This record gives sequence, C-alpha cells and structure tokens, in this order.
Amino acid sequence: MLSEHQIQIRVGYHEVDSMGRLYHGHYFTYFEKARLELLRASGRNYRDLEEAGHFVVVTQCGCRFLAAARYDDLLTVRVVVGEVRGARAEHEYQVFNQDNLIALGHATLAMVDRDGKVRRLPPSWRTAAPSGDDPE
Amino acid sequence: MLSEHQIQIRVGYHEVDSMGRLYHGHYFTYFEKARLELLRASGRNYRDLEEAGHFVVVTQCGCRFLAAARYDDLLTVRVVVGEVRGARAEHEYQVFNQDNLIALGHATLAMVDRDGKVRRLPPSWRTAAPSGDDPE
Amino acid sequence: MLSEHQIQIRVGYHEVDSMGRLYHGHYFTYFEKARLELLRASGRNYRDLEEAGHFVVVTQCGCRFLAAARYDDLLTVRVVVGEVRGARAEHEYQVFNQDNLIALGHATLAMVDRDGKVRRLPPSWRTAAPSGDDPE
Amino acid sequence: MLSEHQIQIRVGYHEVDSMGRLYHGHYFTYFEKARLELLRASGRNYRDLEEAGHFVVVTQCGCRFLAAARYDDLLTVRVVVGEVRGARAEHEYQVFNQDNLIALGHATLAMVDRDGKVRRLPPSWRTAAPSGDDPE
Repeated sequence: MLSEHQIQIRVGYHEVDSMGRLYHGHYFTYFEKARLELLRASGRNYRDLEEAGHFVVVTQCGCRFLAAARYDDLLTVRVVVGEVRGARAEHEYQVFNQDNLIALGHATLAMVDRDGKVRRLPPSWRTAAPSGDDPE
Repeated sequence: MLSEHQIQIRVGYHEVDSMGRLYHGHYFTYFEKARLELLRASGRNYRDLEEAGHFVVVTQCGCRFLAAARYDDLLTVRVVVGEVRGARAEHEYQVFNQDNLIALGHATLAMVDRDGKVRRLPPSWRTAAPSGDDPE
Repeated sequence: MLSEHQIQIRVGYHEVDSMGRLYHGHYFTYFEKARLELLRASGRNYRDLEEAGHFVVVTQCGCRFLAAARYDDLLTVRVVVGEVRGARAEHEYQVFNQDNLIALGHATLAMVDRDGKVRRLPPSWRTAAPSGDDPE
Repeated sequence: MLSEHQIQIRVGYHEVDSMGRLYHGHYFTYFEKARLELLRASGRNYRDLEEAGHFVVVTQCGCRFLAAARYDDLLTVRVVVGEVRGARAEHEYQVFNQDNLIALGHATLAMVDRDGKVRRLPPSWRTAAPSGDDPE
C-alpha cells in the first residue's frame, strides 16, 4: 500500500461559514477523502473492505488551522501514513492552498468488525510497518 | 398518528453559505427533522420502524424560497401530512422566521423494505386516509 | 456561455444516511457544483461575480429520485441551462450512476445584489435566450 | 460569562455514516453549538459580536472518540471554558450518551477582526481568567 498520497479538493459554496471561511469541521471530511483515495491509488477500495466485514473508525483526530481557505479555492490535501501496529494506524495530513500550508491534521484509525470489536489490520494494510514487527 | 406538527430549529453557524444565508439544501434536512419529530410526537419512533425492517425514502421533494434566513435565526418548521395511499405519503412543509413565511416545501415518501422494494404503509401510518379507503 | 455541462462526483462516506444511500438533500449540492463548473468551463467564475456584487440565489428547486446511490459510486451530474429571462434562469439536472438515470432535478436561479434585491442578469449570462429577446 | 454549559442534541438521520455511526466530523459542529449556547445562556449572542466586527475562529481542535452514537440518540454536550488569555480561549468538551461518556474534545479559539487580524478578547469574554491576570 502507498504510504502517502495527495488529492485536490475545490472548496464548495456550502462549505464555508458566515465569515466566508471553509468551516473547520469540513477539514476532517477532506482528510477522509484523502485517505480513501490513497487506498484507491493503492489498488484497494474501502467499500470492498466494508463489504468483507472490516470497518475503519476514527478513534481520535485533530487539526491546527494556520490560515483560512475560501469558497472556490483549489486545495491540495496530502496524507502520510505513519505507524501501523496491530489494529491501529496513524495518519498525518497537510492542506495547502497554492504554496501555503494552511492546516496540519492527524487521525488515529482503528479497524473493527461489524459489531465494533477491534480486530487486527489485514497484512495488506501494514506495509508501512518495519519488517519483522508485528508478525501475524 | 398526528396529521401535523411543528418544531423550532436554530440556524447553525456552519449551515450558511458565503452570502450568510441558510444554504438552500439544508431546508430538506429541516423538513426531515420535522417529520421525524411528528412521528415522535405521535408516540412512534422512526428508528424502531427501521429496526423492524421498514424504511422510508424520499421519492421526490421540492421547495420554494421566499426569503433568506441567517445564522442564529430561530425558525419554525411545520409539517402537514397530506394524502397517504398504499406505500406513499405526501407531506407539505412551511418554514417561518418569526411571522414571515420564508419557504414552502413538499416531499413524497415511500415505504420500502431493506432491499429497497416498495411495500405498503402499515395501518398506523395511514390514519390520514379516509376510512374505508385502502384496506389492508 | 455554455448551455450544458457535466461533471463527475464520487459519493462521500459522510454523505450517506443510515440506509447507506446518498442522502437526498445532498443532490442539491451536487447540482450546484455542476452549475458552478459549467460557469468555470465557460471561462467565468462565480466568485468573481460575487466580488463584483452579483449574487445568485436559488428561488425554487426540486428533485425526483429514481434509484439510490451508495458510498463510493462515481456519479455523472449533467446540467442544462433552460430559459434565461430578465433576472431568472432555469436549470435542469440529470444524475447518472453508470448508465442508469437515478435523479432528475431542476432549479430556478435569480440574480440579486448584495442586499438581496433582484437585478437583471448581465448579458453574458443570457446567451441561451433567443436573440432579440430581452434587450438590455 | 458562564464558565460551563451543557445542551442536548439529537443525532440527525443525515449525520451518520454508512456504518450508522454519528460521523466523526460532526462532533465539531456539536461542540460549536454548545459554545454558542453557552454564550446565549450568558446573555450574549455571537451574531451581535460578529456584527460589531469581532469574529471567533478555531485555531486548533481535536477529539477522542470512545464509543459510537447512532441516529436518534439524544446526546448531552458539555462545554467547559478553560484558560482565557489575550486573544485566545481554551475550551474542553464532553459528549455523553445517557450516562456514557462517548467523546472528549477540545478547541482553541482566537478572536480576530473582519480582516482576520488577531485582537484581544473583550473583557466580558475573560471572566474565567483569575483577577489581576491579563490587565487591559
């Protein structure tokens, strides 16, 4: 699986708040889109994973906002997969507006089954882990 | 079941567009909230209905927008159940900002099963239909 | 200006409801995105229009839903500009999932100034109108 | 100004993801609603503040998710104002589903003017600060 990927997202007209700034809650949606596209670019598909009974949930996330984005700005959202261990994976995100870094995010994802019970990541999700680490 | 109901909704900060107006797509969310609360006020609960395998889908909807609403406005959303026949129910909606009517909406709902197949409304959903009509 | 245009939108993970269907309110967001991209493909930009003090508001809209879309489906959204007269323009929308038409929408847009007063469309918006009609 | 407040929010039908869980990005919207209602309960109104040229932006935020919430759950969202210093205020959030704590959040807010320049909080926003601290 790829360990990083980037996509472009154009800020939607309905995604701004009354100051005309991209609403802070929507950055988390952009992060998610980036990680789903990383998966697709790796030849995998999250929907298939769900249909096979594997679900990914966000157990924590956060973001620092450095500058505002506005309606119609074309942003670059970059995701970097960090430590992957057992049933958890760390992700870092960077959002750029042209050359300006405007936000830094992170999320911890956990893999669960249909009943919400934590289960280990399949080997194909753990390519970022050092070899020898975390043997099945 | 009640044939009409009204609720109050305060326009959220993230629900406006870059003109500062309640985004037009969100009115349909407000309508839905009104009809779910009508159900609750009738002593029923849509979640229970879903858990029993009955799902309600919107087959068509529309809205006329007469005036804008702004962040923090406290709106009154009124739902009136219209014709209920077989697996379909008509709803009308009115949105008021203080005393001003600002939007007029409508939706046609259909009851389906988990696979999306149309199925008749249970009798408890058909109280608005004239008696003798549409016998089970 | 172009009189029709189409874009592709992938259904987001957060855009479905608890049945796993693309939430009906989000179709209106997709329609908007299609008309903004029609503008961009015509060499214009809605943000510039707003900065010049022209705003477009939706005065009515509606949609018929023919089939459900699911998370990760790649939809084609087509917008066709209809009658453009004075300060109003009609738009029709079609949503396809692969080859299946899944939704038919429409919207009436009006041009207003910063205070919400209706004002005529600039000539560049009226290319769809028959020549001789609606002289400035 | 109050230093803490709590509100109830019922999870909307369109706010869940395809697993049927309240989408993680929406918690930040709930936090915002809680802090705006804290303001209202303190006899103030954020809209008035904006109209006076003071804007509040989120400079960082985060959340840990402990358990899922589902459509129709009635959640309690509690906001606690932490350190308020200069132009910044810290907020902590707790989300309960019945008696279960399901999420822990935080946000740092900064006050800016219409051009996004940081400006000190008006004294009325700083009641949580120890007296003698941060003199005007």
